[in-house]
Amino acid sequence: MEEIQVAPPKIGEVRVKIICTSLCHGDISFWRSESGPFSFFPGIFGHEAAGIVESVGENVVEVKAGDLVLPVVQRNCGECRDCKFKGNACTKFPAASLNAMPRDGSSRFLDKDGQPLHHFLFASSFSEYTVVDMTHLVKISPEVPVDKACLLSCGVTTGVGATMKAAQIEEGSTVAIFGLGTVGLAVAEGARIRGASKIIGIDKNLEKFEIAKKFGVTDFVNPTSCGKDSVSQVIREMTDGGADYCFECVGSTSLIREAFDGSRQGCGKTVILGADLHGSPLSIHPLEILTGKSIMGATLGGIKPKQDIPHLAQKYLKKELRLDGFITHEVNFEDINKAFDLLLQGKSLRCIIWMDR
Amino acid sequence: MEEIQVAPPKIGEVRVKIICTSLCHGDISFWRSESGPFSFFPGIFGHEAAGIVESVGENVVEVKAGDLVLPVVQRNCGECRDCKFKGNACTKFPAASLNAMPRDGSSRFLDKDGQPLHHFLFASSFSEYTVVDMTHLVKISPEVPVDKACLLSCGVTTGVGATMKAAQIEEGSTVAIFGLGTVGLAVAEGARIRGASKIIGIDKNLEKFEIAKKFGVTDFVNPTSCGKDSVSQVIREMTDGGADYCFECVGSTSLIREAFDGSRQGCGKTVILGADLHGSPLSIHPLEILTGKSIMGATLGGIKPKQDIPHLAQKYLKKELRLDGFITHEVNFEDINKAFDLLLQGKSLRCIIWMDR
Repeated sequence: MEEIQVAPPKIGEVRVKIICTSLCHGDISFWRSESGPFSFFPGIFGHEAAGIVESVGENVVEVKAGDLVLPVVQRNCGECRDCKFKGNACTKFPAASLNAMPRDGSSRFLDKDGQPLHHFLFASSFSEYTVVDMTHLVKISPEVPVDKACLLSCGVTTGVGATMKAAQIEEGSTVAIFGLGTVGLAVAEGARIRGASKIIGIDKNLEKFEIAKKFGVTDFVNPTSCGKDSVSQVIREMTDGGADYCFECVGSTSLIREAFDGSRQGCGKTVILGADLHGSPLSIHPLEILTGKSIMGATLGGIKPKQDIPHLAQKYLKKELRLDGFITHEVNFEDINKAFDLLLQGKSLRCIIWMDR
Repeated sequence: MEEIQVAPPKIGEVRVKIICTSLCHGDISFWRSESGPFSFFPGIFGHEAAGIVESVGENVVEVKAGDLVLPVVQRNCGECRDCKFKGNACTKFPAASLNAMPRDGSSRFLDKDGQPLHHFLFASSFSEYTVVDMTHLVKISPEVPVDKACLLSCGVTTGVGATMKAAQIEEGSTVAIFGLGTVGLAVAEGARIRGASKIIGIDKNLEKFEIAKKFGVTDFVNPTSCGKDSVSQVIREMTDGGADYCFECVGSTSLIREAFDGSRQGCGKTVILGADLHGSPLSIHPLEILTGKSIMGATLGGIKPKQDIPHLAQKYLKKELRLDGFITHEVNFEDINKAFDLLLQGKSLRCIIWMDR
């Protein structure tokens, strides 16, 4: 913990007082990148959070001081061809680095010696104050409790969103989910909402199975108990030919391959949600795809943050989307390392880190 | 040419008098497979055709003698989970081989010495009479001229269908098509119908460019004239970041890779329509997919034959779908080898082979 300086917002930027933040596997992946293009040290991590607008820069009209807002990694300018048309890969600042403000590439943070600090995924929420570009900020109804709102900033939205936007699961579909962390369980919750007939959870951690039931998971596969069968074989048997949708929520190339092999001949979709920054390539024969399977990826589940996150918030308020179960722990900011320990040990889903409690 | 015996249809089967057939690259791929699991010699090739029902076996109620019908490679029982739900991979006869009747695995053909002949893709249309399982037969309105109906049996349906079912192209999309044979040009025709704003055709054969314009292709790339740039780079420049849809209609793993690289970051779909029976695997890093791209395959464009081919026929009759331009040559059955020469030399799109003219 150290004192830093947070500069006022420039054009198109907003200074946000973070109320709470939580820890997502993305933080850990980058935190472990000690060298290479994904190494951002010294810097301020954290990207799943909720906060209150403290002040706004020039040209910011979408929010005002006091508004409840979420930082989001996924840019959404609302004006470029991609924001207006399809997908969710905003092309407003094509040269933006993941470790600086997107508009001018500079930092708003100075350390105690006056040296600039790296930003992180346009959020840097492990700080009492941060500066976020307006294209990375979503305004949320203040009716949503701030810790639940925080969940919608990244992980839960990725999973639920992927069932609605990237995969577009139909009623009666069979779904297999590799990895029952927050993203995987959010996929289950989304699949349940969309009327999936069978939701198979796959995880080595047996403790995940009980909690997973609450999110709609109907069947479980423990990869270490499959005997000589592969997980994909087991899934094909459980679904009479393969699951309509297989979600990979871990970030492992070999699991993507299992997911693909467990997906249904002729129509099975494999959706990649997990990221392995240093993983190996995937090898698939074109004939395996030709007969109708597909593989797709989705950052933030394929949703457009400014239109879709408020929609998910409304679904929560209407009790259609369940968020409460994702919060398994809460700590004060000074105990943030405990949040890391819990996630690394597979003991937490989301640990809410309160900045000022 | 030799005389053969064609047995009467058994339960669920139909004996069809072929009126005309045409040559598709699929015939050539299998014809060249002199050994291995895809080698069907001696056998009767041909799978794109139109004919008249001569007689029906037991339990066949869908068609009667005199009906205009098309054999289709894609099975469509209408009763299994897949036919009723999604995709187009009928699971009625899971053990069926591509070289025999699907229901009992036997042959309806005997050569002049009384030896059974292999079937081919459930059609075997290079014969005056053939026997087709009802699950591989589509009834078509007799208003459709028989040679145009023939086109809907495979290649044109694959291309047009892929724009509607597999890819679901939206108005304003940009499309790149690798390979301007019949399937590629049918993709162009489908993309035009769906309102694509830019349709880029890629082919080494410069003669294809003039004819391609008639099918809606707006821009051309000759891979041999790209200088030091890759085709994917050229496509990204022409589309300001990549095409929304890239169709691979050749059957080459390296072209699939170019298609993927030329597809748009965040939403680009690569659709594999070409088949290379002996090709190499595709290697893609999961992070390249994670950010929103997808790869999918589709046999017969992802359409369900019995419901969608009659729909395409209606589109032709209403002059919404153009078929005439695909027929570049016509020969009598005894000159079938000329049809092979024309296709192999890249001189024809479809050469209609008339059985009895």
